[in-house]
Amino acid sequence: MKLKNPITLSEVARFLKCKMIGNEDMLITGINEIHKVQEGDLTFVDYHKYYDRAIQSAATFILINAEIDFPAHKGILISEDPFRDYNKLVNRYYETQPVMGHSANHGKNVEVGEDSLIMHNVFLGDRVKIGKNCRIYPNVVLYSDTIVGDNVIIHSNTVIGADGFYFKKRPEGYDKLYSCGRVIIGNNVEIGASCTIDKGVSGDTIIGDGTKFDNQVHIGHGVEIGKNCLFAAQVGVGGKTIIEDDVTLWGQVGVQKDILIEKGAVVLGQSGVTKSLKGFKVYFGTPAIDAKTRYRELAYLRRLPNLMDEYYGSTESSSEE
Amino acid sequence: MKLKNPITLSEVARFLKCKMIGNEDMLITGINEIHKVQEGDLTFVDYHKYYDRAIQSAATFILINAEIDFPAHKGILISEDPFRDYNKLVNRYYETQPVMGHSANHGKNVEVGEDSLIMHNVFLGDRVKIGKNCRIYPNVVLYSDTIVGDNVIIHSNTVIGADGFYFKKRPEGYDKLYSCGRVIIGNNVEIGASCTIDKGVSGDTIIGDGTKFDNQVHIGHGVEIGKNCLFAAQVGVGGKTIIEDDVTLWGQVGVQKDILIEKGAVVLGQSGVTKSLKGFKVYFGTPAIDAKTRYRELAYLRRLPNLMDEYYGSTESSSEE
Amino acid sequence: MKLKNPITLSEVARFLKCKMIGNEDMLITGINEIHKVQEGDLTFVDYHKYYDRAIQSAATFILINAEIDFPAHKGILISEDPFRDYNKLVNRYYETQPVMGHSANHGKNVEVGEDSLIMHNVFLGDRVKIGKNCRIYPNVVLYSDTIVGDNVIIHSNTVIGADGFYFKKRPEGYDKLYSCGRVIIGNNVEIGASCTIDKGVSGDTIIGDGTKFDNQVHIGHGVEIGKNCLFAAQVGVGGKTIIEDDVTLWGQVGVQKDILIEKGAVVLGQSGVTKSLKGFKVYFGTPAIDAKTRYRELAYLRRLPNLMDEYYGSTESSSEE
Repeated sequence: MKLKNPITLSEVARFLKCKMIGNEDMLITGINEIHKVQEGDLTFVDYHKYYDRAIQSAATFILINAEIDFPAHKGILISEDPFRDYNKLVNRYYETQPVMGHSANHGKNVEVGEDSLIMHNVFLGDRVKIGKNCRIYPNVVLYSDTIVGDNVIIHSNTVIGADGFYFKKRPEGYDKLYSCGRVIIGNNVEIGASCTIDKGVSGDTIIGDGTKFDNQVHIGHGVEIGKNCLFAAQVGVGGKTIIEDDVTLWGQVGVQKDILIEKGAVVLGQSGVTKSLKGFKVYFGTPAIDAKTRYRELAYLRRLPNLMDEYYGSTESSSEE
Repeated sequence: MKLKNPITLSEVARFLKCKMIGNEDMLITGINEIHKVQEGDLTFVDYHKYYDRAIQSAATFILINAEIDFPAHKGILISEDPFRDYNKLVNRYYETQPVMGHSANHGKNVEVGEDSLIMHNVFLGDRVKIGKNCRIYPNVVLYSDTIVGDNVIIHSNTVIGADGFYFKKRPEGYDKLYSCGRVIIGNNVEIGASCTIDKGVSGDTIIGDGTKFDNQVHIGHGVEIGKNCLFAAQVGVGGKTIIEDDVTLWGQVGVQKDILIEKGAVVLGQSGVTKSLKGFKVYFGTPAIDAKTRYRELAYLRRLPNLMDEYYGSTESSSEE
Repeated sequence: MKLKNPITLSEVARFLKCKMIGNEDMLITGINEIHKVQEGDLTFVDYHKYYDRAIQSAATFILINAEIDFPAHKGILISEDPFRDYNKLVNRYYETQPVMGHSANHGKNVEVGEDSLIMHNVFLGDRVKIGKNCRIYPNVVLYSDTIVGDNVIIHSNTVIGADGFYFKKRPEGYDKLYSCGRVIIGNNVEIGASCTIDKGVSGDTIIGDGTKFDNQVHIGHGVEIGKNCLFAAQVGVGGKTIIEDDVTLWGQVGVQKDILIEKGAVVLGQSGVTKSLKGFKVYFGTPAIDAKTRYRELAYLRRLPNLMDEYYGSTESSSEE
């Protein structure tokens, strides 16, 4: 973003309590991540692998955690934690937490902790409890009995606590099992826009502390998710599956019901998890298997047409549709 | 769930009109499905394959449809339909159908049948008709001319009747074909949270009686879906496709536009249906083919690297990236 | 759709200023696309490949852009642009742009251009700007600082401008990078129901003029999309990816973050794009590769079990699980 009023390098150094290298009167006109910087911008870098890219970029100002050689015309800020200090700058010069209305609607016996913002047209069902310092964005719906911890962010149009998808087939059609469980969300959780998290049919659906969901994630009834998991957009998890701590599911991954994904597992995008997975390994494919094995299969598959034409003689290949 | 006030075995037996085996004064402290039972809980089982699992579980009370041998310390309730009677218990001790607000907003000439609940901030466009005994949850939007049958449940933030995705490519850009069809939803349908069902561009989009959708299902313009179909979460169906009765689509399945899926077909998770499918068979893969054939291909593919290394000599494999 | 009051062929010919062939007093009782026409219906056709299908269909009236041989009993309207004239008819006899409420809610310094309709319970955050002649359907949420061009349609429950999914892993858990970018939507864009478009974390997320999204599309932070792109339902695009003009992504396609899809590329349904793609080619599979190459691999894979059984001897095949 561009700053409305440019600020001097020395002003930022004082605000962040950082050592400064360069002309203290140089004007910072914008703050940006590395991929889109322009002259006058400040960017940050905190990993040695990317130091060079940042220093060679168009950015005039670098917030960095090492004192190395810099071009003379740049302005440098030495920080022990550039990510944290960049966030401080964004928070100072941009309203990062907009308050979008206050017209929430409540059922009976609702409790909301201090400093929590329940924004425009959020609906809280009966007995919903929300902890401290939460931000619930417009049009979120929390069905009755949902429990939310402290420092939780829920983005717009997410629905928490709808009925589980659980039916018994009868000769005359499907018969619904009534859901009487809850959804329980831990502390420091962030849930993206338009997610759906169903309540348990008898037990509870649980989202552990520090877990983060991107947009359009679906979580089935009675699922239990551990701490500090990361689910990218459009992930779906079937009912009663258990996912341990530190699991990463990339975009559009689908997970079967009734299975277990152990601690630290990583599942690559669009994979379909059909069986329980061991922890601290990387998986890929539908069905999801060890990622390297899957990539190896795909590499050999690429060579299969040539092998087969050679084995059968090349006339064969012309008969393929 | 745990009961607020424990109840005796005999009390439940009287309520359900079931035969009781065991100490009539034993206290039931919770009701739960089999996968998460604790001491004091009542669970249900109605399929002989799972009798043993239920009887051996931590549950103290079993609602079952057979009189077999039971451990002496358990409390047993013999029911001709344990699923139905479990639902009766849940309904008695838990408010399974929370009413979440009444502040719906209406267009012109809207009709809502008796005993139907239109909850907080539901928007009903012009000429929308809703049958009897329906439950429309907060923030649902029904565009103008949508017709909903009796006993229908629609969960929060679902959108029914938005325009079809139908454009003509012109030299100067895409030109929209205006949609003038409707969405017609039969009786006893349940639609999950955050689903989208588009109206037909000229004809109608139809969801047959007894069909059930999980969350985040997308149905394109002019699709016709039969009776008693089951679509799991994040399924998407392209425009004008016809799906006959009793079809099951598992999670994240995608279906092409303009095709036919015949009665009783089952499509496994994440499959992509690109051609019309015959009924009463199981399909898997993208493109979706007979599931057994697809699994067989994957099993052989697993062995392909070894075959190829053997055929070409193993030095070859080291040249793979 | 069926017309409430039938109209004569001559009346329509006059309205559309078209040449008419057939009995001018014949009554048109409905207008429909070709796939569902009945006697009395008018349909349109504008491509010679489909002329015959339209003429042989049950439709009594054909709106067509060529003067060829027609059955004597049909009513024909010769138009230089049947698609445009069909739309004119739909617009005349059906209220294609229903106004669903006016109770929008605004933050501070919001600007809405003339003839734009902001419908029931739309929430516009601070400093949101909307151009002329837009239609924002019920329950849409535009976070603060979102900018929308002219002639834009946004369907119900779409969320624009939520925070990017961007975290730094710390020993104690994930640390959120605050988003301070915006979403900028060009002119003549249509966005389906329940889409989510995140703001950039520092730069802007950009949707180019004339681009059209179906329902449940997800666009990550800082993505830049060109002009006249077409994204079908349930597509997801990761953060900071660049997509040039005239790109088509079919249903459920997933695109990695930080890559480039060049002008005119087409990606078939459910594909997963993991690397940058060259323009004006067709891609398929996960990872997405040249579509013909992928289809060829699948055709050879189909024959692999036979090859392997032959090579190893058929007893081998019985040892497969």
